[in-house]
Amino acid sequence: MDDSITLQALGSSRQTYAYDDPDPSVLETFPTPQPSGGLVIRLFALEFTSLCPVTGQPDYGQLDIVYVPGPRCVESKSLKLYLMRFRNHGAFHEACVAQVAQDLASVLAPRYLRVIGRFNARGGIAIWPLREVVADHEDPAALRALVDLDNGARP
Amino acid sequence: MDDSITLQALGSSRQTYAYDDPDPSVLETFPTPQPSGGLVIRLFALEFTSLCPVTGQPDYGQLDIVYVPGPRCVESKSLKLYLMRFRNHGAFHEACVAQVAQDLASVLAPRYLRVIGRFNARGGIAIWPLREVVADHEDPAALRALVDLDNGARP
Amino acid sequence: MDDSITLQALGSSRQTYAYDDPDPSVLETFPTPQPSGGLVIRLFALEFTSLCPVTGQPDYGQLDIVYVPGPRCVESKSLKLYLMRFRNHGAFHEACVAQVAQDLASVLAPRYLRVIGRFNARGGIAIWPLREVVADHEDPAALRALVDLDNGARP
Amino acid sequence: MDDSITLQALGSSRQTYAYDDPDPSVLETFPTPQPSGGLVIRLFALEFTSLCPVTGQPDYGQLDIVYVPGPRCVESKSLKLYLMRFRNHGAFHEACVAQVAQDLASVLAPRYLRVIGRFNARGGIAIWPLREVVADHEDPAALRALVDLDNGARP
Amino acid sequence: MDDSITLQALGSSRQTYAYDDPDPSVLETFPTPQPSGGLVIRLFALEFTSLCPVTGQPDYGQLDIVYVPGPRCVESKSLKLYLMRFRNHGAFHEACVAQVAQDLASVLAPRYLRVIGRFNARGGIAIWPLREVVADHEDPAALRALVDLDNGARP
Amino acid sequence: MDDSITLQALGSSRQTYAYDDPDPSVLETFPTPQPSGGLVIRLFALEFTSLCPVTGQPDYGQLDIVYVPGPRCVESKSLKLYLMRFRNHGAFHEACVAQVAQDLASVLAPRYLRVIGRFNARGGIAIWPLREVVADHEDPAALRALVDLDNGARP
Amino acid sequence: MDDSITLQALGSSRQTYAYDDPDPSVLETFPTPQPSGGLVIRLFALEFTSLCPVTGQPDYGQLDIVYVPGPRCVESKSLKLYLMRFRNHGAFHEACVAQVAQDLASVLAPRYLRVIGRFNARGGIAIWPLREVVADHEDPAALRALVDLDNGARP
Amino acid sequence: MDDSITLQALGSSRQTYAYDDPDPSVLETFPTPQPSGGLVIRLFALEFTSLCPVTGQPDYGQLDIVYVPGPRCVESKSLKLYLMRFRNHGAFHEACVAQVAQDLASVLAPRYLRVIGRFNARGGIAIWPLREVVADHEDPAALRALVDLDNGARP
Amino acid sequence: MDDSITLQALGSSRQTYAYDDPDPSVLETFPTPQPSGGLVIRLFALEFTSLCPVTGQPDYGQLDIVYVPGPRCVESKSLKLYLMRFRNHGAFHEACVAQVAQDLASVLAPRYLRVIGRFNARGGIAIWPLREVVADHEDPAALRALVDLDNGARP
Amino acid sequence: MDDSITLQALGSSRQTYAYDDPDPSVLETFPTPQPSGGLVIRLFALEFTSLCPVTGQPDYGQLDIVYVPGPRCVESKSLKLYLMRFRNHGAFHEACVAQVAQDLASVLAPRYLRVIGRFNARGGIAIWPLREVVADHEDPAALRALVDLDNGARP
Ligand SMILES: [Ca+2]
Ligand SMILES: [Ca+2]
Ligand SMILES: [Ca+2]
Ligand SMILES: [Ca+2]
Ligand SMILES: [Ca+2]
Ligand SMILES: [Ca+2]
Ligand SMILES: [Ca+2]
Ligand SMILES: [Ca+2]
Ligand SMILES: [Ca+2]
Ligand SMILES: [Ca+2]
Ligand SMILES: [Ca+2]
Ligand SMILES: [Ca+2]
Ligand SMILES: [Ca+2]
Ligand SMILES: [Ca+2]
Ligand SMILES: [Ca+2]
Ligand SMILES: [Ca+2]
Repeated sequence: MDDSITLQALGSSRQTYAYDDPDPSVLETFPTPQPSGGLVIRLFALEFTSLCPVTGQPDYGQLDIVYVPGPRCVESKSLKLYLMRFRNHGAFHEACVAQVAQDLASVLAPRYLRVIGRFNARGGIAIWPLREVVADHEDPAALRALVDLDNGARP
Repeated sequence: MDDSITLQALGSSRQTYAYDDPDPSVLETFPTPQPSGGLVIRLFALEFTSLCPVTGQPDYGQLDIVYVPGPRCVESKSLKLYLMRFRNHGAFHEACVAQVAQDLASVLAPRYLRVIGRFNARGGIAIWPLREVVADHEDPAALRALVDLDNGARP
Repeated sequence: MDDSITLQALGSSRQTYAYDDPDPSVLETFPTPQPSGGLVIRLFALEFTSLCPVTGQPDYGQLDIVYVPGPRCVESKSLKLYLMRFRNHGAFHEACVAQVAQDLASVLAPRYLRVIGRFNARGGIAIWPLREVVADHEDPAALRALVDLDNGARP
Repeated sequence: MDDSITLQALGSSRQTYAYDDPDPSVLETFPTPQPSGGLVIRLFALEFTSLCPVTGQPDYGQLDIVYVPGPRCVESKSLKLYLMRFRNHGAFHEACVAQVAQDLASVLAPRYLRVIGRFNARGGIAIWPLREVVADHEDPAALRALVDLDNGARP
Repeated sequence: MDDSITLQALGSSRQTYAYDDPDPSVLETFPTPQPSGGLVIRLFALEFTSLCPVTGQPDYGQLDIVYVPGPRCVESKSLKLYLMRFRNHGAFHEACVAQVAQDLASVLAPRYLRVIGRFNARGGIAIWPLREVVADHEDPAALRALVDLDNGARP
Repeated sequence: MDDSITLQALGSSRQTYAYDDPDPSVLETFPTPQPSGGLVIRLFALEFTSLCPVTGQPDYGQLDIVYVPGPRCVESKSLKLYLMRFRNHGAFHEACVAQVAQDLASVLAPRYLRVIGRFNARGGIAIWPLREVVADHEDPAALRALVDLDNGARP
Repeated sequence: MDDSITLQALGSSRQTYAYDDPDPSVLETFPTPQPSGGLVIRLFALEFTSLCPVTGQPDYGQLDIVYVPGPRCVESKSLKLYLMRFRNHGAFHEACVAQVAQDLASVLAPRYLRVIGRFNARGGIAIWPLREVVADHEDPAALRALVDLDNGARP
Repeated sequence: MDDSITLQALGSSRQTYAYDDPDPSVLETFPTPQPSGGLVIRLFALEFTSLCPVTGQPDYGQLDIVYVPGPRCVESKSLKLYLMRFRNHGAFHEACVAQVAQDLASVLAPRYLRVIGRFNARGGIAIWPLREVVADHEDPAALRALVDLDNGARP
Repeated sequence: MDDSITLQALGSSRQTYAYDDPDPSVLETFPTPQPSGGLVIRLFALEFTSLCPVTGQPDYGQLDIVYVPGPRCVESKSLKLYLMRFRNHGAFHEACVAQVAQDLASVLAPRYLRVIGRFNARGGIAIWPLREVVADHEDPAALRALVDLDNGARP
Repeated sequence: MDDSITLQALGSSRQTYAYDDPDPSVLETFPTPQPSGGLVIRLFALEFTSLCPVTGQPDYGQLDIVYVPGPRCVESKSLKLYLMRFRNHGAFHEACVAQVAQDLASVLAPRYLRVIGRFNARGGIAIWPLREVVADHEDPAALRALVDLDNGARP
């Protein structure tokens, strides 16, 4: 890359991502590593953004996604592309978290899934919705205990 | 906006909010997103202020509001307007927290509600009242476990 | 206030507080707000100081006081005046915490009371005594769970 | 203080402060301690609040006030009462800072005065206006050097 | 606002902002408060985002804008709307900072302007471009000294 | 060491570590100190790095390893040498954590083992896999309770 | 300091502490304050140091000692002198923690004792051994719950 | 030390310090180490407390004392005893700082002395007075440059 | 990406980067944006690693690179690839910093360049080398002043 | 390493370092890398400890050493061994800093050297001595400016 003029031309022909269509079909998966017992996967999406459906103004926050996998795990690059599709999508914080939880649950069939959205304050009010999805026939208490093994104590 | 003189005129005719009448009827709600299972909503009001009922001097603090919704959820802009009504209202910290908890409980009929006020120190003493409201026929332990899924560990 | 000379005179006739007589009779109370269920009150005394009973040198620390009220609550200004009475009082950290716990328990008859002293290090050693008082006929586990609803996660 | 019912009554008759009339005549002063050479006074008002003149919604911030005194210094309690008078006053951040600077300058006739307002973000934008007032015949560079002797390095 | 179904409909008809056309004509100004001497205005845009012109992927950062005003100041709401127009705009960090600096300089004719972009790391590399614009006939050293009066020391 | 020229020669003949062959046979152990009851060992590997198996680019993170020992404990210097062998090894975060857990489990036969990887964000997404291994015939709840005795509260 | 000659003379005759003989007989105790129920004592030794038994190089860390007293409590000055005796003593981190736990247990006969060592990283690896000692006939779960009443939430 | 009853008796006969008589004659000094060029000594008194001369209530803060020595330096233990004498002394923050500066200047005859008091907020206002004393015939700029060599950058 | 088995195969054929040949020819550049006056570019390489030339063990640190461009600027992706080439390269901290400074200077011909390496401690000693390169005929003081316009004060 | 019994034997025959004889002859050097212009080297010794010459009790602190090299630079491992020799050495903080500065100056003949000791508080008083050594015929202002290029601003 050697000439910013050229780069701007490149820019105009850059890859066109979908920014307003959160679509679970972009989520890719891989088989859960064996043995699957005692495995928890946590993903922090530190740069989540969407639009307020009423005012059209941007919202920013972080998603904290943790799950006990069923047969498949989500590939993180595809998760990033999926989350980028909320960029120009208008939805309340609660709805974003709900959709992410539902889409991951449908694609991964996890034994347990928790999604927390920690959004930046607007008007001095910060909203943190949380969605927990426990698969049928699973024991919520046991899976919560597994997921919460990381209690945050560290140097 | 182009002229600060004009802006000051605008200012004198600015919208007149009620600042001394915490009134739950200003709280607006929306139907709880479905499915409602596994849903927790937390709201931090980072810029709460009221007046000391004895000295008339301002107090400052943060409200940490978390609930497991019943049929309806509180709309955050209306919550902000409701909380602004404590601005010139004289009440002790414990009473502010109690009133916010009671008003939200009456408007939302939540399965579970917890309100913590974390007020700035006065004379070297900081007061943090906490109010928990559990709906009749609900299991407090189960709802507390749900509400406390966020244990604070993160990057 | 207009003349520092005058102010120094004022200073010499300033109100004389007791600084070496921790006396629970200075603690004032007010009736516990109703309903009392689900109510927890936490008070941080951020500027506690006393004297070492052996060396006479000052100690500094913070008191973390949390209780589930019985019929009455402690008024925070009077708590401040009560704690100021340790200023020139010689007592070990453990004794200060014990006395504060005992005095509050006797004055408030709380269902549950916990006092933690977090004292600054001396010679590289920091001492944090903790006193828990549970009223007769109360269930400690239930009250501890109530008191610990605030797990510290926040923005 | 022993009965919250009584206290609420007290509250209704509490001292009535002016909250919407920033008036420099409430500022009290005392003679600058001698010798005045090499003296700098810095005051942080950590809980400043005012109203947006357009929307009527509250703003919050901190004022950082530092000055090299002339003949008189401001008494901090009166400064607090003066700043409380912005509570319900509608003015932009820049205007609040300008007024505080101008009022302090007129009352104190300081050799040097600097007022910085660090306001909480609104819509993701934080505004920090700064006003510097240097008395006639003073050397700004010398006074700035004096004021900036505190470079923030500490344990 | 009372029905999230309705709200989604509202959302589809929400105000349509331009998100890919950074256009200085949306910047509104107001006359610089008098006296203009000793006045510095700093604005932090904490939620800036744009797109990488090569990969089309989002970038995030904070803009630190400080200026010594000439005849007019920028109104912060219009600044927010202007910066929102980088949201879907493809440009390198250096170019974003350069454009913001140039647009503000052309609209405000400031005596001095500095724009720093502090962008989140990509591939472990964080880029912070800085642009300084000094008006003709102004003394850079004097204006830098004025702008740098806030050295960051505070409680 | 006295001449950087010489040192560079030394450098060319420096000890050749394996950097791409995570091999549990390099893990050394020592007998678990007696009594082994009530003993928990936690090791933080603060400078873990490996390569992305798809892009070949480096990843960085911290490993949080905690175990309740069986008959033997891992010697920390050998753990360091073992972890250094991931330096040029291509593996996903989940696989690195899984391999470390499996290798430690096979070498130590611990009663309980937990390995958490906290990797730096890539593309705004941070991945934290967790692996828990509980020996046959052990009670997971009891061992988790033992391991989690350190709840992070401290000065 | 140059009358430091005199002081160095003082120094050469300074009290000679044992620095390489961790000996529990230097631990002094006092009777546990009554009532002993609900009492927890935590001591942080923030400046612990010992020597690596293999390389002879110094190690540094912090000890977090918490206990539910039996008949007697440890006096903190004597604890400091006891811990100073590890200064030139060669022992692994696990052995230091084990010895401190054993010595305190033998001298205090506590109902419950927990010692955590949080040592600074060496070669990028930090080791945190933990020792828990529960007296015969005591209920570990009840005592752990008592000891863990301080969950770290505070201003 | 073996019996807290006895200790309380000891306490009543403990060394009697003066707590209300800031007296520079308790300050001890030692000859400045040679060569004295390029030497700066900084002392942080982290636990300073005094009384408000009007209300008699305690104030807390930290003193930051830095000097370029003349012929003698202050011994830190005696400084501690000197500062303890403000404990029950009624004086405004500015006066405390002024007195400390004056007393140190008179006892040490330093080439340069700077005392900053950083006091905890009262009513939301924190006061930080600063006193600089430059010996006659010294160059303030050169000594300030020497004193400010520590700019606070560190790991 | 759909099968971790496949991915491991991919991994074995992954792109082969050079990890032990810091070669400035991989650095790509682009023309400096115009006008070039008042432009400073700072790049933080947060995940730098190399090998100790004596022991062969890894070192970790952060590079802080800031320059005033001449005709060309460095493209950040190519900088990342260049710095990755130190991964298996044995060199002292001072030599790494020197080489990065020299290579950037030769490729960019900057008016001013500063490279600071902030390396993690080894054996309790952290090394931070700094290299400054000022082009011939440039004024170091003026360029340093430009580069240091960012003094770190921010929310 | 496989048996802690064996290791203790090893321990008894471990290398015997001198811990009470700060001796500059253990400092090793290497030729300053060329070109030497624009080179600054900073070393933080994070785990410095010595003994109080009066009480014999340990002191802890950090040394911040920065220099502009003359012909030779100090090798960091030898610096560590040199500083370890203060471990059992009785000397005041000022004397430790003075000796380190003098020994490094005599061994390195640096153009400029600055040593700051930041010692942990004793009795609430922290002492930070600073020693600056400027070679004859050097310009202190120019070298200070070079050394202070790192102003601490970073992510
Ligand atoms: Ca699709
Ligand atoms: Ca959409
Ligand atoms: Ca109404
Ligand atoms: Ca009212
Ligand atoms: Ca007493
Ligand atoms: Ca008036
Ligand atoms: Ca008004
Ligand atoms: Ca565009
Ligand atoms: Ca491999
Ligand atoms: Ca013995
Ligand atoms: Ca020994
Ligand atoms: Ca006297
Ligand atoms: Ca007095
Ligand atoms: Ca090449
Ligand atoms: Ca190489
Ligand atoms: Ca010695």
